[in-house]
Amino acid sequence: MSASGVKKVVLAYSGGLDTSIILKWLKEEYDCEVVTFTADIGQGEELEPARAKAEAAGVKEIYIDDLTEEFARDFVFPMFRANAIYEGEYLLGTSIARPLIAKRLIEIANETGADAISHGATGKGNDQVRFELGAYALKPDVHVIAPWREWDLLSREKLMKYAEDHGIQIDYVKQGKKSPYSMDANLLHISYEGDILEDPWAEPEEDMWRWTVSPEQAPNEPTYVELTYAKGDIVAIDGKPMSAAEVMVHLNKVGGENGIGRDDIVENRYVGMKSRGCYETPAGTIMLKAHRAIESLTLDREAAHLKDELMPKYASIVYNGYWWSPEREALQALIDHTQQVVNGVVRMKLYKGNVIVAGRKSDTNSLFDASIATFEDDAGAYDQKDASGFIKLNALRLRVASRLKKS
Amino acid sequence: MSASGVKKVVLAYSGGLDTSIILKWLKEEYDCEVVTFTADIGQGEELEPARAKAEAAGVKEIYIDDLTEEFARDFVFPMFRANAIYEGEYLLGTSIARPLIAKRLIEIANETGADAISHGATGKGNDQVRFELGAYALKPDVHVIAPWREWDLLSREKLMKYAEDHGIQIDYVKQGKKSPYSMDANLLHISYEGDILEDPWAEPEEDMWRWTVSPEQAPNEPTYVELTYAKGDIVAIDGKPMSAAEVMVHLNKVGGENGIGRDDIVENRYVGMKSRGCYETPAGTIMLKAHRAIESLTLDREAAHLKDELMPKYASIVYNGYWWSPEREALQALIDHTQQVVNGVVRMKLYKGNVIVAGRKSDTNSLFDASIATFEDDAGAYDQKDASGFIKLNALRLRVASRLKKS
Amino acid sequence: MSASGVKKVVLAYSGGLDTSIILKWLKEEYDCEVVTFTADIGQGEELEPARAKAEAAGVKEIYIDDLTEEFARDFVFPMFRANAIYEGEYLLGTSIARPLIAKRLIEIANETGADAISHGATGKGNDQVRFELGAYALKPDVHVIAPWREWDLLSREKLMKYAEDHGIQIDYVKQGKKSPYSMDANLLHISYEGDILEDPWAEPEEDMWRWTVSPEQAPNEPTYVELTYAKGDIVAIDGKPMSAAEVMVHLNKVGGENGIGRDDIVENRYVGMKSRGCYETPAGTIMLKAHRAIESLTLDREAAHLKDELMPKYASIVYNGYWWSPEREALQALIDHTQQVVNGVVRMKLYKGNVIVAGRKSDTNSLFDASIATFEDDAGAYDQKDASGFIKLNALRLRVASRLKKS
Amino acid sequence: MSASGVKKVVLAYSGGLDTSIILKWLKEEYDCEVVTFTADIGQGEELEPARAKAEAAGVKEIYIDDLTEEFARDFVFPMFRANAIYEGEYLLGTSIARPLIAKRLIEIANETGADAISHGATGKGNDQVRFELGAYALKPDVHVIAPWREWDLLSREKLMKYAEDHGIQIDYVKQGKKSPYSMDANLLHISYEGDILEDPWAEPEEDMWRWTVSPEQAPNEPTYVELTYAKGDIVAIDGKPMSAAEVMVHLNKVGGENGIGRDDIVENRYVGMKSRGCYETPAGTIMLKAHRAIESLTLDREAAHLKDELMPKYASIVYNGYWWSPEREALQALIDHTQQVVNGVVRMKLYKGNVIVAGRKSDTNSLFDASIATFEDDAGAYDQKDASGFIKLNALRLRVASRLKKS
Repeated sequence: MSASGVKKVVLAYSGGLDTSIILKWLKEEYDCEVVTFTADIGQGEELEPARAKAEAAGVKEIYIDDLTEEFARDFVFPMFRANAIYEGEYLLGTSIARPLIAKRLIEIANETGADAISHGATGKGNDQVRFELGAYALKPDVHVIAPWREWDLLSREKLMKYAEDHGIQIDYVKQGKKSPYSMDANLLHISYEGDILEDPWAEPEEDMWRWTVSPEQAPNEPTYVELTYAKGDIVAIDGKPMSAAEVMVHLNKVGGENGIGRDDIVENRYVGMKSRGCYETPAGTIMLKAHRAIESLTLDREAAHLKDELMPKYASIVYNGYWWSPEREALQALIDHTQQVVNGVVRMKLYKGNVIVAGRKSDTNSLFDASIATFEDDAGAYDQKDASGFIKLNALRLRVASRLKKS
Repeated sequence: MSASGVKKVVLAYSGGLDTSIILKWLKEEYDCEVVTFTADIGQGEELEPARAKAEAAGVKEIYIDDLTEEFARDFVFPMFRANAIYEGEYLLGTSIARPLIAKRLIEIANETGADAISHGATGKGNDQVRFELGAYALKPDVHVIAPWREWDLLSREKLMKYAEDHGIQIDYVKQGKKSPYSMDANLLHISYEGDILEDPWAEPEEDMWRWTVSPEQAPNEPTYVELTYAKGDIVAIDGKPMSAAEVMVHLNKVGGENGIGRDDIVENRYVGMKSRGCYETPAGTIMLKAHRAIESLTLDREAAHLKDELMPKYASIVYNGYWWSPEREALQALIDHTQQVVNGVVRMKLYKGNVIVAGRKSDTNSLFDASIATFEDDAGAYDQKDASGFIKLNALRLRVASRLKKS
Repeated sequence: MSASGVKKVVLAYSGGLDTSIILKWLKEEYDCEVVTFTADIGQGEELEPARAKAEAAGVKEIYIDDLTEEFARDFVFPMFRANAIYEGEYLLGTSIARPLIAKRLIEIANETGADAISHGATGKGNDQVRFELGAYALKPDVHVIAPWREWDLLSREKLMKYAEDHGIQIDYVKQGKKSPYSMDANLLHISYEGDILEDPWAEPEEDMWRWTVSPEQAPNEPTYVELTYAKGDIVAIDGKPMSAAEVMVHLNKVGGENGIGRDDIVENRYVGMKSRGCYETPAGTIMLKAHRAIESLTLDREAAHLKDELMPKYASIVYNGYWWSPEREALQALIDHTQQVVNGVVRMKLYKGNVIVAGRKSDTNSLFDASIATFEDDAGAYDQKDASGFIKLNALRLRVASRLKKS
Repeated sequence: MSASGVKKVVLAYSGGLDTSIILKWLKEEYDCEVVTFTADIGQGEELEPARAKAEAAGVKEIYIDDLTEEFARDFVFPMFRANAIYEGEYLLGTSIARPLIAKRLIEIANETGADAISHGATGKGNDQVRFELGAYALKPDVHVIAPWREWDLLSREKLMKYAEDHGIQIDYVKQGKKSPYSMDANLLHISYEGDILEDPWAEPEEDMWRWTVSPEQAPNEPTYVELTYAKGDIVAIDGKPMSAAEVMVHLNKVGGENGIGRDDIVENRYVGMKSRGCYETPAGTIMLKAHRAIESLTLDREAAHLKDELMPKYASIVYNGYWWSPEREALQALIDHTQQVVNGVVRMKLYKGNVIVAGRKSDTNSLFDASIATFEDDAGAYDQKDASGFIKLNALRLRVASRLKKS
């Protein structure tokens, strides 16, 4: 046992340079056992190299898990039922992955008897908050080690020096041309921060983007997809049943091919500063628009408006890392309750960055009643005279106030 | 004076068939004088034919007003400060024009000594509500005549018969190919309802759209515009100062040329039914995205979130016709208060339906502080260790609850 | 079958003069069968006289139901989980009874094959809305007959004349001294409107109040009660298990004896005008305070604040008559979800109109941790240094803005 | 200049033991000049002893300010326009004083050229947050010294030892019988925490309370007061014009005499734990009830409901210490906008802990229209038939959904 009291720590380990340094640093600084945990959440990288590196570093307990289905089903899909979007723009791609990582870190801590967890998020970002709030909520007395807040390796040079001094392999080849950006990827999105993006006036360079072609380079012919919804979730595409992860893989593919899902924003971090980020979220961009479309047909007006009013709060809760909180669970209970009727099909047209609703229908739950809405004779389905009383009573308070003002 | 007690009525008169029939019908049914009011709010039609028709119909008091600047400045711009969008999609193009018409109807009633107003909106729609709530709020004892709720001319055939019987000119040529859609236009948008749109599964036909080319037919080269904001309003484009109406004319033009601003939705009317509508809002689509971008740089996080939480309510208030209400005015006071700092420039890229933020800057009000946000060494601008305490205290309630659950 | 098409109507029948006149009027005007429905919802009046009168009036299908338990359990208790209070003052005593009556009217209509319902609420009040929204929501094509909106018996004299002309017994004795007020009573409250209350400057006369003694006349010794909560509902008083209705009967008794629960307000009706009402709600007044107290101990801060922010909307929904709506059900799902942890005991002191929390505890769900909150040495349960970082990061956005302002 | 870089610090100095120790400790630890600032905000203690002690401790710059009027006028009154109440119970008595202290500390720092401020709030409470957020918002680069978070004098014994060792006078006599509670007082309230209150099941002892008699001991005759409102603020009592502070002094007196304003709650601190507090807020309790009463007569329904929905957020903002924030200012703009019409008189009955509205009137702004609300014949002021259409259209969405469910 180390002087700090930590005996064993579970490290969220990507196999990259930073977490490899952390692995070493934890052993040195804390003199404790390290368990590594590497997850596939759809980031599109092989995980076996991480195993090899962990083994080479002497790690005895190595966890490598495929969490893509759980991620899509239990995190992304529930969030999309809320139409969640942070600050009008951000689809919460990074935010929504963190609580799953936190949950798995704690499960592994419990399985391996570890008393601490560690991660590679910096002290300036939101991810540290998301990891740690999740960890504390699930294991209140866990010890959290956040090396970036503790060590003095605060520049790239110092990190490289540390790596060299400790014989940590620097895998220059792995990423091909080294990206100058800080990136994060999972099944929902890939993000870019840093470098020239630190100037909000600078337009991102085309070669930064990795998942989508530009609208300019997308095909000249549109792609149509039909999305079948059951209780607010997509369960089939073009008639073919799919799991949550399969849905996202498919939509990422067709979305990316059609130049869909790029976003470039200045956002307000929970830790207090504004930051610039670029995001590619092909599937998510389609899913948000399509979900709104199926709700527009099947959801009651006031239930929909209630969801709209609560959405910014829900999005902030997820953004700020409070997935594992009573307030998120309470809101989710409300949202999920409303989704029982959200069944039907949406037809989407994808074309050069545009996501267009080309049709929506619901055999079982459409509240659209053409016999009422029609501009033609409605055969008495709606009595226009009712509108007089409706307006008169709604105007009453305004009239009383107006009379007073004039008197 | 007629049996109804109405002596003189101000009619919102477009010069089209419907309001020409109403003009005649009012004289017959109410045996009263009719004053006509025709407004230019940027709908893109000549108004002099309306004057000629009104004169031909024997109207003695004819008002024809150019309200485009007032419309843009006092209605559209304040609404865009709120980032208002109804049900996640609709930019409120029709809704925002009605309170201005109501205001002008009442002003003319006061000037001409009229005791009633009349309009051509049907009993199924939102516009009757918007007209009448406005009228009642501004002149509480005005008599409102809504012919569509009173007469029995509820089919196209009956209307035509009435026109023929009363010698009302049916101007087939005017609109060229007669549109099968119910349309409404002003400086902010043009809308389409009815006909094949009454099937929400049906995709609109390309030749329905009038203001925008399709993304497919838009130029292969993007257009860039630089929008200068002062207190939340655009005051210049590409460095050239412009009035509110000029801004909108310009953005409608470049937006429409680049295939921007089409929307196709099912919306919830205030009178209770769902309806399908298609909209073209080129300038508005650009303005919403650009305004969010300049706010992202200049507006405090919590002020921005407060606006986001209140926005759905503001949008519903406008949609439902409560522009002239204490609640809209109270919200506007809040919104306008926040806009004092919303100054700067946004650079927008317009390309085949895409509205892309290509840059944002503010010499005077940028809250983006690269020295804090940087991934590089920040020379002490931000102490990463502060994050530990921040997380610990934010986690406290979750930890206490978690301990309890485990015990 | 009558000319109106109505064959059989279920009438909400109290046995009083007004609904007795309606009973007669329905037969005359609509030439239809009338089914009477009289409910005991705790208003404290015998129902058998209503049966006798209905029989005397020739009614063949007479329903007399004791709904007090259902009322308390399925309507009042769920509403109190929300801490619902309309406009800061009104405990919704009338509002919450109407959806139950509506439900039962429709059930009886379905059982008896009736195609219409009728009620004695006037066209100026909220109750007509509550009855009818409920009826339409549960049986969308039901015919609703609201005599007060149809007939011309709009003064007391005309009503009396009608009663005399049609041989309807006017039961002067029944109410003892005839009250000049319009009253409504059920297990939750009794209300008073009209007469001198129509002047908001006038203080109600002491002899108006029926359920409570005045604080002046209440005992000089306080009464203590201990309320045991399970999932947000009171399940025992002073250790004795009770049903929902029993809880309310008991608290009405001790509350009324101690001068508790009078309220005197000007409220905003849904139909548009302000009205003055006085209310006695002894049990409800105790329940609201006590429920907040048990929540203060057991409910998470953010869940509690979320409930507080949603409460005004929930209260308006109930007040306006939308109990049987998707938005109320969605909010209820959220509220009920939060109540799983609301278990424990509250000790209340009742004294001359005062409702005082004298203690609260929860063996299973208290989140109050004295070891953290203590002013004494906490043995490391809370590290005061964490507060520095918490404040620093929360202040960051304010500091950046302040620096900008100064520069 | 000290090693810490601090040259001069402004200390919020009460003259009590704790801040006297801090005064000494600052000089020792920081080797810097200390400026003392002592404010009269209505706490009811003489300030000259503080001056004498500061002089005795060698302080050269001593500020003693009477801020009671500013406190009442610019802080308490604006907050009461919002009907602010935290967690349904707490009138924010401590919270609202802190931003004023922070403002004055910073003004003095600017006047004296100090680069730091210091206060005696502990690291567990909300007050540190309120002081420091205010300070940072007003002087972003100020150095904040919070001794309780830095030193190791965490028990009463250590403090006493420190005082003795450094010759600090321990003024046992000053408070008479030493209270076992941690207290805070200002014109709005006095609070109690700690000691036996740390058990939420324990009822406070009668002799804890200082400002109010118990309801039991209050007079047997009620006291009536008439409060005149202008723009939402009380400007006269019983016809006598008064300043904001005079209003509060008067209402504290009559409220306290009548046993009004005690509260005993468990609240959720911003720093994460639940804590128990008891409060006496005589004037505030009367003001909240009376303000709601005058609003009930003069404020539009939807404006009032908007305020109600925003109130919990406003209260949290004040509670959490964000008075000097863009979000509080934006909300205040909305609130103040609504108060233009809040003019009139409220008559309040005070009796043994009860605060009863006995009448409300407004010559200029009453929206209560007896001719509409009356139960008697209204001579056509309101057409009851309008209610049918009102209900029908409001029911439309419910009916469509109900038909669908049945089909």
